[in-house]
Amino acid sequence: MAKWLNDTGSEKDVVVSTRIRMARNLEGYRFPHGMSMEESEELTHEILNTMKNFSGNGDYRFIKMNNLSPIDKMAFIEGHVISPGLIQKPDYSSFLLRNDENVTIMINEEDHLRIQSILPGLNFQGGWELCNEIDDFLEENLDFAFHGDFGYLTCCPTNAGTGLRASVMIHIPSIVLTGYANSLVQGLNKIGLAVRGIYGEGSKAVGNLYQVSNQTTLGDKEEIIIEKLNNIIHQIIIKERTARNTLLGTKKDELEDKIFRSLGLLKHSRVMNSKEAMVHLSNLRLGREMGIIEDMEYDDITKLIIQIQPASIQKDIGEDLSKDERDIKRAELLRKRI
Amino acid sequence: MAKWLNDTGSEKDVVVSTRIRMARNLEGYRFPHGMSMEESEELTHEILNTMKNFSGNGDYRFIKMNNLSPIDKMAFIEGHVISPGLIQKPDYSSFLLRNDENVTIMINEEDHLRIQSILPGLNFQGGWELCNEIDDFLEENLDFAFHGDFGYLTCCPTNAGTGLRASVMIHIPSIVLTGYANSLVQGLNKIGLAVRGIYGEGSKAVGNLYQVSNQTTLGDKEEIIIEKLNNIIHQIIIKERTARNTLLGTKKDELEDKIFRSLGLLKHSRVMNSKEAMVHLSNLRLGREMGIIEDMEYDDITKLIIQIQPASIQKDIGEDLSKDERDIKRAELLRKRI
Repeated sequence: MAKWLNDTGSEKDVVVSTRIRMARNLEGYRFPHGMSMEESEELTHEILNTMKNFSGNGDYRFIKMNNLSPIDKMAFIEGHVISPGLIQKPDYSSFLLRNDENVTIMINEEDHLRIQSILPGLNFQGGWELCNEIDDFLEENLDFAFHGDFGYLTCCPTNAGTGLRASVMIHIPSIVLTGYANSLVQGLNKIGLAVRGIYGEGSKAVGNLYQVSNQTTLGDKEEIIIEKLNNIIHQIIIKERTARNTLLGTKKDELEDKIFRSLGLLKHSRVMNSKEAMVHLSNLRLGREMGIIEDMEYDDITKLIIQIQPASIQKDIGEDLSKDERDIKRAELLRKRI
Repeated sequence: MAKWLNDTGSEKDVVVSTRIRMARNLEGYRFPHGMSMEESEELTHEILNTMKNFSGNGDYRFIKMNNLSPIDKMAFIEGHVISPGLIQKPDYSSFLLRNDENVTIMINEEDHLRIQSILPGLNFQGGWELCNEIDDFLEENLDFAFHGDFGYLTCCPTNAGTGLRASVMIHIPSIVLTGYANSLVQGLNKIGLAVRGIYGEGSKAVGNLYQVSNQTTLGDKEEIIIEKLNNIIHQIIIKERTARNTLLGTKKDELEDKIFRSLGLLKHSRVMNSKEAMVHLSNLRLGREMGIIEDMEYDDITKLIIQIQPASIQKDIGEDLSKDERDIKRAELLRKRI
């Protein structure tokens, strides 16, 4: 679970993970929302056949959406391995997952193909290379829908052009605590970046976690899109670190109390819902960021944030649980691991 | 501090402490509120002179109210060694304290003499004997104000007769949690018992701690007053234990969570005010009562409840502290001791 966290990345005191995805479509097929079952099977077959000859890094396993239990589906989403969009039409969709789980090739999400890479910390270069390797290979062997003016054609026009979305999950408790979160979000929106909660579009920011990504996919080259985002993220990193030092200088006792109270509750509670757990895990991470807590790795906290989610808890236990049962098992898991 | 807790007593799962006090006055002196300084000195002198010849148990040290710092005065009150009434006219009042702190002879509180015993758990017999020994000796050697019809005369007529007040501090979280606290208090009032908070008249019930005492001092003999109260306390003990079993049967998960959350906060917080600390210590005691927490003695929890009070904290540290400083030192003390 959340195997992809076993990779490298930098700036982990602010950046939780880096995700890159490319939207691609094949000539000669209708977009997934309008295709027939036969068409979907033919498309899937063509992609799988092509991937058989892929000789790049990693082994891939093929997973059909219909072969997954509801809990398995949700657990893959909670682990950021597939997007919520992929489970909308389960008869049509499937994915290829690299064994280290850093790369997923989603078939029949909103587009025919969504190539995704995910890595811990800040790592645009690594993520870009992971996606690119697949994209280059598939482009050589498949007929991608491409237009001289509009670039890669996509189901939703907002994805046309590069088809690229680069996104970074950041943990910015000090910006939130010093009261600058709203103006930061507004500022990012103004320069064309989307800011979302931990589970993408429509999800709320919980535990001081925000996803920042490019809105525009058309006009700039891929490298430029990523470089622009990278520059902004570096500015946010500086902002967060500055806010952190301000807080350490002015509110150390209060912060220590907040952090250690969360630690105490994580270590002792018997019942805990996921929202509360997120708040305490965010405080724990804040403790690590401030050097107040030292014996916990950033990626282990990220792993816990994934593992305490509703489906992941049930997958771990191996059975369906009611909400009340989950809250008990979640507290148990947290006590064991912290 | 709170040395008196090193004694014996029973039913400690419900009863925190037993206190007995006798109000006595000497013939030939006005009541404290109306006496002159000279009269007060003469009275104090007479009592001290008499006590010099006391050959009963324990050594007594003499403490003048004016020789105590404000923190020392409050710490004695917080430790239940003297009553809040004793510091009202510090030029007049003083006390003799037995070295084990189970007996205090207060001079010029509301009455000339208030003989008090305090013991851990339920122990009317022990407390009664402690007071009686002093009372008998003083009665033989001093001229107590006594009236054939009204018994011992006291400043406030509500204390006349036996001059006896027996009181018990009870911890009844299960009665509170099952919603029966108010009707219990009303019932006790109806049968002539006073129910108060942890620091007596006018203080609120914090941490599920209540003081129950007789209101009437006239009409019954001392033994009857105590026996009646003793019977009632035994009924409350049964009520609390029944409520506890009910809760264990119906809300075990919820209770365990509540108890362990308090434990987690007591063990990890960096800042804690006394009211919050009382709540968590009460939950800790509840955990002990339910067998959920096993490695903590009832009397150690009672000691902590005293030691985290504002003056006791400062006495322990040895310096005046602001409220914010106290909250930090309190959290420190709790982490060290739990």
